[in-house]
Amino acid sequence: MSSPFLDQLSYGGDYNPEQWSREVWLEDVKLMKEANVNLVTLGVFAWANIEVADGKYEFGWLDEIFDLLHENGIGVDLATATASPPAWLTRKWPEVLPVTNQGVRHSHGGRQAYCVSSPIYKQKAADLAGRLAERYSKHPALKMWHVNNEYGCHNPLCFCDQSEIAWRSWLKLRYSNLDELNRAWGTNFWSQKYHDWEEINVPAETPAGTYPNPSMFLDFRRFSHYQILDLYRAEKDQIRKFDSSTPITTNFMSMKHSGNLNYWDWANEVDFVATDHYLNAEDPKNYIDLAFQADLTRGFAQGKPWLLMEHSTSAVNWQQRNIAKSHGEMIANSMSHIARGSNGAMFFQWRQSISGSEKFHSAMFPHAGRKSRIWRSVVELGKQIHDLGNLSKTQTQRAQVAMIFDYESWWALSQMNLPSTSISYPELAHDWYRALWELGVRVDFVSPNSLLEDLNAYELVLAPMQYLMSDSQEQVLSNYVANGKNLISSYFTGISNEDDSIKTGGYGGKLATDVIGIHVEEFAPARSNEFVELSNGYKATEWSQFAEATTANVLAKFSSGEASGSAAIVRSRSANAWYIGTRLDDASCRQFFDSVIGELRLAREGGDGVEVVRRGRTKFLINHNTNQVSWEE
Amino acid sequence: MSSPFLDQLSYGGDYNPEQWSREVWLEDVKLMKEANVNLVTLGVFAWANIEVADGKYEFGWLDEIFDLLHENGIGVDLATATASPPAWLTRKWPEVLPVTNQGVRHSHGGRQAYCVSSPIYKQKAADLAGRLAERYSKHPALKMWHVNNEYGCHNPLCFCDQSEIAWRSWLKLRYSNLDELNRAWGTNFWSQKYHDWEEINVPAETPAGTYPNPSMFLDFRRFSHYQILDLYRAEKDQIRKFDSSTPITTNFMSMKHSGNLNYWDWANEVDFVATDHYLNAEDPKNYIDLAFQADLTRGFAQGKPWLLMEHSTSAVNWQQRNIAKSHGEMIANSMSHIARGSNGAMFFQWRQSISGSEKFHSAMFPHAGRKSRIWRSVVELGKQIHDLGNLSKTQTQRAQVAMIFDYESWWALSQMNLPSTSISYPELAHDWYRALWELGVRVDFVSPNSLLEDLNAYELVLAPMQYLMSDSQEQVLSNYVANGKNLISSYFTGISNEDDSIKTGGYGGKLATDVIGIHVEEFAPARSNEFVELSNGYKATEWSQFAEATTANVLAKFSSGEASGSAAIVRSRSANAWYIGTRLDDASCRQFFDSVIGELRLAREGGDGVEVVRRGRTKFLINHNTNQVSWEE
Amino acid sequence: MSSPFLDQLSYGGDYNPEQWSREVWLEDVKLMKEANVNLVTLGVFAWANIEVADGKYEFGWLDEIFDLLHENGIGVDLATATASPPAWLTRKWPEVLPVTNQGVRHSHGGRQAYCVSSPIYKQKAADLAGRLAERYSKHPALKMWHVNNEYGCHNPLCFCDQSEIAWRSWLKLRYSNLDELNRAWGTNFWSQKYHDWEEINVPAETPAGTYPNPSMFLDFRRFSHYQILDLYRAEKDQIRKFDSSTPITTNFMSMKHSGNLNYWDWANEVDFVATDHYLNAEDPKNYIDLAFQADLTRGFAQGKPWLLMEHSTSAVNWQQRNIAKSHGEMIANSMSHIARGSNGAMFFQWRQSISGSEKFHSAMFPHAGRKSRIWRSVVELGKQIHDLGNLSKTQTQRAQVAMIFDYESWWALSQMNLPSTSISYPELAHDWYRALWELGVRVDFVSPNSLLEDLNAYELVLAPMQYLMSDSQEQVLSNYVANGKNLISSYFTGISNEDDSIKTGGYGGKLATDVIGIHVEEFAPARSNEFVELSNGYKATEWSQFAEATTANVLAKFSSGEASGSAAIVRSRSANAWYIGTRLDDASCRQFFDSVIGELRLAREGGDGVEVVRRGRTKFLINHNTNQVSWEE
Repeated sequence: MSSPFLDQLSYGGDYNPEQWSREVWLEDVKLMKEANVNLVTLGVFAWANIEVADGKYEFGWLDEIFDLLHENGIGVDLATATASPPAWLTRKWPEVLPVTNQGVRHSHGGRQAYCVSSPIYKQKAADLAGRLAERYSKHPALKMWHVNNEYGCHNPLCFCDQSEIAWRSWLKLRYSNLDELNRAWGTNFWSQKYHDWEEINVPAETPAGTYPNPSMFLDFRRFSHYQILDLYRAEKDQIRKFDSSTPITTNFMSMKHSGNLNYWDWANEVDFVATDHYLNAEDPKNYIDLAFQADLTRGFAQGKPWLLMEHSTSAVNWQQRNIAKSHGEMIANSMSHIARGSNGAMFFQWRQSISGSEKFHSAMFPHAGRKSRIWRSVVELGKQIHDLGNLSKTQTQRAQVAMIFDYESWWALSQMNLPSTSISYPELAHDWYRALWELGVRVDFVSPNSLLEDLNAYELVLAPMQYLMSDSQEQVLSNYVANGKNLISSYFTGISNEDDSIKTGGYGGKLATDVIGIHVEEFAPARSNEFVELSNGYKATEWSQFAEATTANVLAKFSSGEASGSAAIVRSRSANAWYIGTRLDDASCRQFFDSVIGELRLAREGGDGVEVVRRGRTKFLINHNTNQVSWEE
Repeated sequence: MSSPFLDQLSYGGDYNPEQWSREVWLEDVKLMKEANVNLVTLGVFAWANIEVADGKYEFGWLDEIFDLLHENGIGVDLATATASPPAWLTRKWPEVLPVTNQGVRHSHGGRQAYCVSSPIYKQKAADLAGRLAERYSKHPALKMWHVNNEYGCHNPLCFCDQSEIAWRSWLKLRYSNLDELNRAWGTNFWSQKYHDWEEINVPAETPAGTYPNPSMFLDFRRFSHYQILDLYRAEKDQIRKFDSSTPITTNFMSMKHSGNLNYWDWANEVDFVATDHYLNAEDPKNYIDLAFQADLTRGFAQGKPWLLMEHSTSAVNWQQRNIAKSHGEMIANSMSHIARGSNGAMFFQWRQSISGSEKFHSAMFPHAGRKSRIWRSVVELGKQIHDLGNLSKTQTQRAQVAMIFDYESWWALSQMNLPSTSISYPELAHDWYRALWELGVRVDFVSPNSLLEDLNAYELVLAPMQYLMSDSQEQVLSNYVANGKNLISSYFTGISNEDDSIKTGGYGGKLATDVIGIHVEEFAPARSNEFVELSNGYKATEWSQFAEATTANVLAKFSSGEASGSAAIVRSRSANAWYIGTRLDDASCRQFFDSVIGELRLAREGGDGVEVVRRGRTKFLINHNTNQVSWEE
Repeated sequence: MSSPFLDQLSYGGDYNPEQWSREVWLEDVKLMKEANVNLVTLGVFAWANIEVADGKYEFGWLDEIFDLLHENGIGVDLATATASPPAWLTRKWPEVLPVTNQGVRHSHGGRQAYCVSSPIYKQKAADLAGRLAERYSKHPALKMWHVNNEYGCHNPLCFCDQSEIAWRSWLKLRYSNLDELNRAWGTNFWSQKYHDWEEINVPAETPAGTYPNPSMFLDFRRFSHYQILDLYRAEKDQIRKFDSSTPITTNFMSMKHSGNLNYWDWANEVDFVATDHYLNAEDPKNYIDLAFQADLTRGFAQGKPWLLMEHSTSAVNWQQRNIAKSHGEMIANSMSHIARGSNGAMFFQWRQSISGSEKFHSAMFPHAGRKSRIWRSVVELGKQIHDLGNLSKTQTQRAQVAMIFDYESWWALSQMNLPSTSISYPELAHDWYRALWELGVRVDFVSPNSLLEDLNAYELVLAPMQYLMSDSQEQVLSNYVANGKNLISSYFTGISNEDDSIKTGGYGGKLATDVIGIHVEEFAPARSNEFVELSNGYKATEWSQFAEATTANVLAKFSSGEASGSAAIVRSRSANAWYIGTRLDDASCRQFFDSVIGELRLAREGGDGVEVVRRGRTKFLINHNTNQVSWEE
């Protein structure tokens, strides 16, 4: 496999020439060159423009633009155009359209209007990918394949009859027999026990106030995730029939609000990792979330470079209030990604559409044209990236701290009937990360299925709210601590095994009981807007619990609420494992991590709004404060 | 019929041995004995474990557990296991699954996934009840029958085709002819007049901003309630074919948030009244709601003992934030029920599940095991109940005050197109009860269809927001006042007759006009968050009205808002009938009732957080304050 | 065509005698005479009472009431009774029932339960209208025809199969070929391009987070609006077969919260304009909204008199809290309408219903009967209207200021994926009107398609948030300014052409760029609850933008937020065109208009809660303040 990356960092974005006239194309390439654009993604939503009826193709316009780009030295990331099926397809096979858990069959006209278990969709999508590969694999402009787009964003689950059939087949592979399934799901309750595979339905909406079995629903999330991965594989395999060398990828959505796919599984299926990132615009510290997600993406890539496939030059169009980026924010965002391992900065999209749902989404060349701060920034950023030189083979410096990020725990905690609807898996993970970022401590991300040798590369491992924990995962963490390395765990970590069956005898399993030395006997969620006080002056929200240290040392007790007097924060007798039994507020969280980092003498650089990241021999300094900061080496 | 109750108070809970291994069963009975458990409810959700395919039964495990419990001196409350149909049933007959007013057919896998008018469900449920009765009626452990479970909790209304057929049949019985129905519903509006029975549909969702005819919808609530009662009767009748003597009951849901069934009708169909009660966890004074509901349940039982069939040892799993019970709260809760007539205290459930939707619902034996405050409290409560001795034949002392509680008014007021969406039937009833509780005044509850002789047993009758009032109900209240007894009525009492047709000529019917002497001409709901001032310094919310005293004396006028100057609180010339024309805030409400209770010289005992209730010769004193209280007899 | 109006102003309301007995009819006419009622609307919801089965009519009761009214000198506005189809119709043809964008088919029993594209409904409705015309066209009581009722209130859009067929037919007429349609909608995105007319679906719900193409949806609004207009025409044409002279109309819903139909199109189809108006009850200044809507209605009528067909004597029944009207408010409301051109004041309804969804809606004769402030006010208003004498041929004095009111822009801005969900077309228009009302400046309303000669009648034209602007509309406004007349435009005016395709090169098209002289390059919506400061001390919310004056003079810059330093309010070099680039708060808005009105020396009269309007030789002075105001001529 040849390198997925150009000799220099990639700069460009989604380019949808089908929306524009030939005259505009010529202006586009001129502008692209002015901005140092060297890569564009073609065809993401162009199925209806390429395959205009079942089996009838119009490649002419694509041939043309390929040649035009190549003549101008611009490479192509070719999308397989399968992200949204055309109207002729769903009109001919309406069963391709996805169905909600209330039985509503969605319509063509939005995005991703297909059932992820549809055999027709899968076949038609793979066919198109093959046709494109057949035609363009040898084109010199082709730099990489972009399969589909943002898989699972709008259609992660489907509840149609075809899905039900696929779901049963998947379950038969997962469970050797029905007894196994009944045991894993705990169906001896609510009259759920299955006596025949055909009795198993998709977990659609149940009577008001009741919900499907949570273990079943967790498996349905797994099933759906793997169905989507199979769609990717089907296209990839078809491409490989015609093109054995061009790198193939798809753009992940590693964002705080987007947890539909478990990208740890996907990372092995792509030739290099690519992702999209859009800010939560109203969050004044969204640059920390951005850093989180960039670090997480580098985690998927196992430290190797990856590619930021989409972000925005300014506002998006789908949030409540689409805040514009402030002066310099776009360049700072791009550089944060590159510092953290992205081999470039790509945008959605090159030229802002004048029609359609995304016409108010910012672009590289905005509605206002050249006379705009956006265009000036785009040119400036192009120059800066060009001037960075060839970083594409360099890696971001490894961190000393690793956070376990677990999509399956997220899925399990996205259900109903939990101790509190206030708890949130991604929020706690971001809380901890934010505290470390502000302290100038860098964080890598690791899979919950990391081996001991992977973890041993780090001085400190964080396991916030890792609700699901298999015996083997627990064993790895126990061994890590036994080796003298440091661990910070939290409330609601290690509660259930991989089937979402509770580990009894004190919450948190052996990790809590044996490794840390705490007996958690009962949860005591906080009331709405209630502050929980701790004996050491910390403040917390959302959670407290009835717990006592068995062998651990108590660092702080709860001093308000039902669980007042219970152990809140403890440290193992061995001194290298901590447990935080509540959601600390920002100041307390920072205080806690400050003391641990200080004691462990871990490296700090930057912080307080200033980001310092080293990649290869380049050091990135990014000041996110509104005021100027002076800096001494 | 033999006594439904054991010789001592019952103590125990739902027991679901099908979730556990034989080893656990042995531990369970040992623990039960340690905690003085003497009754458990078997089989509530076990249909799929007992009838494993249509007509194919597996009783072995149930036989075993029956024997094991009996050997250990623990009685059985046997559920008919029909609360949730198994997957094989709804797979074979999908028409059993219930349908929402939007036409969504719900899925198997939650609870109560059946249409309450389904002939198949009714037959299959009755068959199973009969099979169980045939097999276990002679078993010495059997103490009572528990038909189904929490009827109407999740599936109170169904809008499927089978429901429509049943609905028309029910209407034909209720109305001798279509003219009667058209008159009762007032169909000469919105083109609703029916000319053929077949034209009548179920009141499913109508175009946005419009709603079905409210009289029709009220009848649909009545119909659905009777359909559910028929399901109960079908099972009961089948049991009686095999068992002529064991008491039969089902667990009501007499809770503030649960008004789907009119339990006054149900009370006559059970051999003794049983109910469940779950707190609104975030309400700091939820012990008053608990007392309300326990008193209401005693009302259903006509003063005789009843049984608390379920409550929780600590948190539940279905509220926004499932607050744990504080130290001593569980025992206080249980004792409040027993003091008010419950022959024991039962819980959901014995051993906390490790899987399924209710795994985070607290239980008697928690996930943490013996090393837990819950288990210690369970053992302590078992001992306390045991030590109470045999209260089971004693009755709670009758109150001097009775409140009318009217589910049909609740139903009528749960619709749209009322003067204000802020008004709430249960809230006003609880307001008044709470004021009396805090004053140490006990309250009985009576049916809106009580006879004059029933009411005459009380010095004071309360009729808060009894929106629907038939002529005969009005006559009973009028005679009660004419007899010199005391009545307190409210705004929005006596507005409509039983068809929900307005009584014209001044709101509130003859009760307001003739008995109290007030002319209410128009409603003036308050604005959102508006406080309504009264001339006597009281404060109120939500409601004012244009009204003037005709023969009554005015105690307070509205002094703010549109209706400023109108009569707010009046007292009949005869001095024994009061009318409160607004929703007083807590302090004002207490002040009002304080003055009335004082003047009438009604008994008070306790109050201000301390509950005093006498049952037989036992006096229960329960302090709900966080501080200690000293008490002198 | 004879005059639609009686010799005196009309006074009365909807009269539904089918709800009452013959004895009540006799009381009704007596009461009507007491109140000077001279017109009632019969039959609005009486289809099921007139056509009791398909083709079977019962006219007897209607004949009787016609005669009774006529004998008592009361005229009839005869409704065609088609507002809600009867149960027999939708039972026989269920496909008539409307379907939501989620595929839910609504039920009979509410209002307007019909698909606006249903051929059956259209035919049956027209048939009934014809039958009524055949029977009553010669009756001397008949004064006018009232086709259907409040078209489009509850069923503006239907997504059923019949709608899809009609939709495609309509599109084929609108677009000469598919290329035109694909271009207009910008379908070269999201794989939306259509290659066959049969591929086009109705824009039903698409996968979560995605929405149908906004240009398509805008056309679907247009289509639906015209389908409804066709329903009106079908009935009207049928009436004209039997009655060539009686005026025909239907009641519009020109309210702030009601934008389903473009009444500029409808105004040409009715013999005179009629409308309904219901207040937003909780708004303390709702009399200004009332004035807005009355002025707008006069705009539809091109300055000629019109008729207020419905308003309420006091509370309605469908808002959150249905606030009663305060003392004098009803009369003030009625007079505001009459002053602004209404030839009378009609109410929903004459006698308050005792059953049905609208029984808590106030009426002329309330539940409480004669002993009520409502009845006293009704009699008083009847007398006042009678005493006004014959205003029916007089016109309200023309204003010097005209506001463009554009339903199509409203439709386009009612979609998702805009820069901010906070922006609202009707709110900004009402903001500006409110400021002018408080300043005592009267406003006329004009169509966005007004000709230059229409606009030239005004000194000042307002174009708030006229998002869609065709080239010809832009040309008219440009010429208007070129003629030296004054224009005030706003942010988000002139953004797109009639297809909702963005005009590039600086937002706002040539109107902004060339006429005003501002270059708007990017939007910067404000955060939730953020105040935007302006350099001249004004305050604003919701919106700011990156903009610079090219030829215009800057009156104020943004001084906070992302766009700080950008031009906020500018004035063209020619000095007669202003542009407001944000949503000013009430005080700032008033200050701005105060200065412009002052400079232009436009007439002011009243203001600050006092309304002064001249109609013919009558001058209406209405004081909306709670305190008395002295007034000198």
